[in-house]
Amino acid sequence: MNDRFLRACRRQPVDRTPIWIMRQAGRYLPEYRELRSRVEFLDLCRTPELAAEVTLQPLRRFPLDAAILFSDILLPLDAFGISMTFTPGPRIAEPIRSRAQVDALQARPAGEAVPFVADAVRLLRRELNGRTPLIGFCGAPFTLAAYLVQGEGKEGFGAVKRMMFHEPATLEVLLDKLAAAMVDYLRLQIQGGVQAVQIFDSWAGILGATDYARFALPYVRAIVNGVRESGVPVIYFVNGAPHLIEAAASAGADVLGVCWRMPIDHVAARVGPGVALQGNLDPHALFADAAVVRERATDVLRRMAGRPGHIMNLGHGILPETPIASVEVLIETVQCAN
Amino acid sequence: MNDRFLRACRRQPVDRTPIWIMRQAGRYLPEYRELRSRVEFLDLCRTPELAAEVTLQPLRRFPLDAAILFSDILLPLDAFGISMTFTPGPRIAEPIRSRAQVDALQARPAGEAVPFVADAVRLLRRELNGRTPLIGFCGAPFTLAAYLVQGEGKEGFGAVKRMMFHEPATLEVLLDKLAAAMVDYLRLQIQGGVQAVQIFDSWAGILGATDYARFALPYVRAIVNGVRESGVPVIYFVNGAPHLIEAAASAGADVLGVCWRMPIDHVAARVGPGVALQGNLDPHALFADAAVVRERATDVLRRMAGRPGHIMNLGHGILPETPIASVEVLIETVQCAN
Repeated sequence: MNDRFLRACRRQPVDRTPIWIMRQAGRYLPEYRELRSRVEFLDLCRTPELAAEVTLQPLRRFPLDAAILFSDILLPLDAFGISMTFTPGPRIAEPIRSRAQVDALQARPAGEAVPFVADAVRLLRRELNGRTPLIGFCGAPFTLAAYLVQGEGKEGFGAVKRMMFHEPATLEVLLDKLAAAMVDYLRLQIQGGVQAVQIFDSWAGILGATDYARFALPYVRAIVNGVRESGVPVIYFVNGAPHLIEAAASAGADVLGVCWRMPIDHVAARVGPGVALQGNLDPHALFADAAVVRERATDVLRRMAGRPGHIMNLGHGILPETPIASVEVLIETVQCAN
Repeated sequence: MNDRFLRACRRQPVDRTPIWIMRQAGRYLPEYRELRSRVEFLDLCRTPELAAEVTLQPLRRFPLDAAILFSDILLPLDAFGISMTFTPGPRIAEPIRSRAQVDALQARPAGEAVPFVADAVRLLRRELNGRTPLIGFCGAPFTLAAYLVQGEGKEGFGAVKRMMFHEPATLEVLLDKLAAAMVDYLRLQIQGGVQAVQIFDSWAGILGATDYARFALPYVRAIVNGVRESGVPVIYFVNGAPHLIEAAASAGADVLGVCWRMPIDHVAARVGPGVALQGNLDPHALFADAAVVRERATDVLRRMAGRPGHIMNLGHGILPETPIASVEVLIETVQCAN
């Protein structure tokens, strides 16, 4: 089995830097767009055979070092009976704004609410047949709350910050419930067979340090602790949070995933050697000429050269219009660099 | 005259920390909403008497230490013949995407394109009668380009980053033209009588350090240098850029304005004593109870205590739904702290 991804998560020596790409199964692939033209997004996620098919699409094209389950961070909110649509961004029918709504939230077990996720994982493990490790994932509680309270993706996510300042105790109850549900959800994926998990904290960066320490970090820690006994490596990805790097590294995850904003060696210097790092090419760099893609990718590798525990990735999800040729150049650069 | 704002810009001793609030003239004020219910946003900006009236509204309510001209960073793009609407966010009729479009851009002098701005400034200086200093402003070239290329405000501003990687030379020509036009525009305001200027770089934070050094910083420096001989203090505000703080401080502005993300004393430690600092209460903190508003504001002041050159402000524009009572608590806290 290709285990360089899992070895890098554990900061063990590898033959070369492993690479996978956030949203590697997605709209930049024509075969994905073809399938999506026939099937709604939520149906793709909820049909194990289709979720598995989409997960495998990028692996058929590219020699990636990990697969990541195709799904969305909001899917497990099904456990709370929260109804949503994707058009294409998520829209939550009834945003959670009041203490009464938060108090009323009760999670069914993930195994009942989203059994299709475990089924997709099992299918994928069979298909992958040990060739490539499979990553599962969930959203971090603050990021999930940002969507739940706002009701949609919106720059700045004002609604959750308003709740945070106006009714901090309400937000804390919500975050507690989300953290517990995510532990349950990740355990379901791990029982199904995922070999690593990533916690996506896409919006923690809108918090200052004091508020991050109270409203984001403890709930990420709760998830990390909740899956620790499984032994699978945990990746904690924070976006837009160069001011929170040291705190984020203290969440207890094996790997800290970072966005493109800070040079990754600066991140390494700030967090020390105790955590592996994942990232951090700017996703927009893939719109540059091949020579620039190669140069930028090489720069990231060079900055991490000699540091045990680096997983090459973009600093955020790959963009829908990204040229396939750039993805090929990126992967070749990583393959040939060591 | 109340000159503690101007003294703080120059890092001179002050009797107490000065305070003004980004977007202090705006939708959180009922008197502004009343006027806006009768007059379109662009008409407000383009009618000197109305722009002056709106500028003065917050000063009638609150003992603020500076006024800031009511306008929008996109207004001076009139000089390029760029047509836009506000609904309420800006929308540019024909986004600038190609080299041909960039090459075709030719700026008329600001004095011809937006004479109403100079008129509003003159009116305001007469009305203010030396009681309160008046701030003028413009957008930073990268931030203006972000809107021009995207055509609207949009999380992540993908279009300008795509141009940056795909056609860097085109973006550089655009940035050059924008910087020159902004120098001309600020000089017009300074001739009219503004006593300080602020350069708003709301979106520079989407750049990594290498790209910021090439596509943002040099054009801000060009503006700072272009208005230096006027002797008015220059404030450079960067949002969401804790990874760029040192570079931003090197732009040559007298004051660095920062968002709420980093504790302001950490910013101070990183940039050294050679630049005044402005900020940085989280605008959402004004949704908290009075005690929390007071505590948060006091915390910012305490972090800057004893450092020459601190201007109290929010870390971003005040939000439309902000309770007036919170603004009163904030201002009282600053007035009574020293």
